[in-house]
Amino acid sequence: MSPVSLNYGNLLQPRLGSDAAKALDPERLAPGGELDARFQAALERVREGRRSGELGFLDLPDDQRLARQVQEVADSFGQWFHTLVVVGIGGSSLGGRAIAEALLDRHWNEASDEARDHFPRLHFLENADPDSTAALLRQVDLRGALFNVVSKSGGTAETMAQYLIIEDRLREALGDEGVRGHLLFTTDPERGALRRLALEREIPALPVPQNVGGRFSVLSPVGLLPAATTGVDVGELLAGAAEMRARCLRDDLRRNPAGLLSVLLHAADTELDCPVHVFMPYSDRLRALALWFQQLWGESLGKAPTAGPTPLAALGAVDQHSLLQLLMEGPRDKVVIFVRVGRRDEPLELPATHAEHPELAYLGGHTLDELLDTELRATTEALRRRGRPSLTLQVERLDARSLGGLFMLLQVTTVMAGAHYGVDPLNQPGVELGKVLTSGLLGREGVEPPEMAADDEKWTV
Amino acid sequence: MSPVSLNYGNLLQPRLGSDAAKALDPERLAPGGELDARFQAALERVREGRRSGELGFLDLPDDQRLARQVQEVADSFGQWFHTLVVVGIGGSSLGGRAIAEALLDRHWNEASDEARDHFPRLHFLENADPDSTAALLRQVDLRGALFNVVSKSGGTAETMAQYLIIEDRLREALGDEGVRGHLLFTTDPERGALRRLALEREIPALPVPQNVGGRFSVLSPVGLLPAATTGVDVGELLAGAAEMRARCLRDDLRRNPAGLLSVLLHAADTELDCPVHVFMPYSDRLRALALWFQQLWGESLGKAPTAGPTPLAALGAVDQHSLLQLLMEGPRDKVVIFVRVGRRDEPLELPATHAEHPELAYLGGHTLDELLDTELRATTEALRRRGRPSLTLQVERLDARSLGGLFMLLQVTTVMAGAHYGVDPLNQPGVELGKVLTSGLLGREGVEPPEMAADDEKWTV
Repeated sequence: MSPVSLNYGNLLQPRLGSDAAKALDPERLAPGGELDARFQAALERVREGRRSGELGFLDLPDDQRLARQVQEVADSFGQWFHTLVVVGIGGSSLGGRAIAEALLDRHWNEASDEARDHFPRLHFLENADPDSTAALLRQVDLRGALFNVVSKSGGTAETMAQYLIIEDRLREALGDEGVRGHLLFTTDPERGALRRLALEREIPALPVPQNVGGRFSVLSPVGLLPAATTGVDVGELLAGAAEMRARCLRDDLRRNPAGLLSVLLHAADTELDCPVHVFMPYSDRLRALALWFQQLWGESLGKAPTAGPTPLAALGAVDQHSLLQLLMEGPRDKVVIFVRVGRRDEPLELPATHAEHPELAYLGGHTLDELLDTELRATTEALRRRGRPSLTLQVERLDARSLGGLFMLLQVTTVMAGAHYGVDPLNQPGVELGKVLTSGLLGREGVEPPEMAADDEKWTV
Repeated sequence: MSPVSLNYGNLLQPRLGSDAAKALDPERLAPGGELDARFQAALERVREGRRSGELGFLDLPDDQRLARQVQEVADSFGQWFHTLVVVGIGGSSLGGRAIAEALLDRHWNEASDEARDHFPRLHFLENADPDSTAALLRQVDLRGALFNVVSKSGGTAETMAQYLIIEDRLREALGDEGVRGHLLFTTDPERGALRRLALEREIPALPVPQNVGGRFSVLSPVGLLPAATTGVDVGELLAGAAEMRARCLRDDLRRNPAGLLSVLLHAADTELDCPVHVFMPYSDRLRALALWFQQLWGESLGKAPTAGPTPLAALGAVDQHSLLQLLMEGPRDKVVIFVRVGRRDEPLELPATHAEHPELAYLGGHTLDELLDTELRATTEALRRRGRPSLTLQVERLDARSLGGLFMLLQVTTVMAGAHYGVDPLNQPGVELGKVLTSGLLGREGVEPPEMAADDEKWTV
């Protein structure tokens, strides 16, 4: 069995019913079938993009030089600092968080210094929120903290603002020399303010390859540096990604997980009227992966009034007590992508006690692992019986190798889906207006102060 | 100015454009207008539900006896324990989490025992996930831990399973007496396994009033006990809720925030084709409130193939780097509910340095608070210019009083929206099938083992 597999029967006829408007005909996936033809065109686009160098993320697993550089920086810094704070937002944070939540023990990370091993504690400073920024800076002892400032462009407003505060605090506490010694940048190899600062002040800086965009950067130094610094096996992450890449470049649609996932989700949206794509892992450790996917899917494909599924990050079994009612009985406009995790280290046995309380007794003799997995199976089946489509990503064991595979699978799926939807999955033109308005409102030189529609007090209660 | 206000101009003509298919005519909100008529019918339903006792959550702010009982239990336990673990899922957890994240300093909560004041540290054990359950139990010193097990029915599978494990660990570590002394239940006053156990073994137990459902229970002992135990001013929460209730029972639609919010969101869905309701606070402290709202809105209204908006919990400014592209240029099927927070204690000044780097220089002299708020204003305006609707909930200052107001506002809004959609907002029949299948698969006595559609290996890659 592969570390990551895809089960897609619950989207097909006759398993999900025989109405062609509600379930897909599997014949269309066969060689020469209509969905296969769509896939072949997308696969060709992926190969072209790889040849032309446009899809840099595909080659990250082979970049031994870059991986070694990250590991060396991590090793040299990791031993000197008890805390690593990653300062970045969106694509500069979500990948690293997804790795950390999946592979580090959260409670270990919160444990006291004495209880931890020799790796630094890891924090992410993501939002430009004064409350959480102030709270983190109060908590962290600056003398033992390394700040990894991550911005590909070197000009992200939130991250630059936090950099200004951090630099100021470091200078105050440790003097000019302290500033330099507690900073590490991850940014464009040539351009931008962070790169210029790095050169001027001899601040160490890792590169984000120019052909790797923010939301495709998890396997670049953006995601790898925090991973390597906290003891994650970066080689395994990359090896898992390389294995998955080989599977995602196969010509045979029915053996290509990215091909299947992309044509099926696209068809679910455009043919079965299911534009809401619910990504629902049954594992607390994959909560941040769901947010990472939400960015990847939403920002890559949301490009036209007629195109762009809505990704909804959920969590099993928790959201059975929140969203399941809507999934079962609300509008039939959703397809669920379950993520099922296999073997867990501690299944946690449920004692067979309380024979007098049937609500407790039937659980005894099972494990918590079994309960969670049974709930996933029951929810999948309940949706199927209601004619509601789903897919299941099966992760044999949640480790660096399978996680690397998931990242690669979902990234290739996204690029292929871009071809199906007829949009460029690599850009994000729609966010520019908000940035320009923000700069203008803050009085940035060269940016016109915007005319804002005045708040109308009449419409306030 | 009220602690919580609603600005709704960005959904109306002519501010959002003059096309009636894309923006609502404000005349319809005037007395006798069509939306006012819809509101009056819903308001009557709320009043009826209050009179009949069906809407128990409305009267929680007046229940001084219950609030005192919670405070006494909190005071008597709080001084003996250094850790409070709330064990519950969905409505038994989300409200408490929303209070804790909004009002407690997250990093204070993670700080070492010495650094904290005299209130216990707070954890939520929500998911039946063996990884996170094992990690939490490894971290917590059982001798100083109180477990507040919360399940209204007393039979929630995930919570009962975790109870079995916790009881076993307590007995092992502390003996039979230890078990009793470290448990506190919150459950139905008369029925269910937890209530029976409480009586049999003299375990202290707080009541969830029978006319208060899980997702409407935040101002009952479910949410109040963890709040009171960690030093939140429960009286202020309830006072804020009572103030808001008075505003939400006003006859004049244009002075009734719940009336406006419910008719506008319902009309956005059914008339403007915006069924995706994005709840997007610009504050890390309101992240859990967004999840709480997601449950409230989704589970209350998702009842029919033709009815039920999809709630999407987001976070500003983080999701400007994730979902904003989709909101700006994707399908025009979303309305955003921004939550804007006013005065913050530490605005965090940005030093005016780096004159030679324009990407940094323009931020100097502002505060981080200003940056975040400017981004909210810019994003709202960018959406408006694109003809995309939004609403803004303005919170003058994020404290117990305004938070209580938000809870009440959103709960009344949900009940009114139930009337607009023609569904019962208080039940959740769609989750039953999954529960029955789970029980059957685990071999619960009296439950038929279900026939499951066999996994078809043919559809696995």
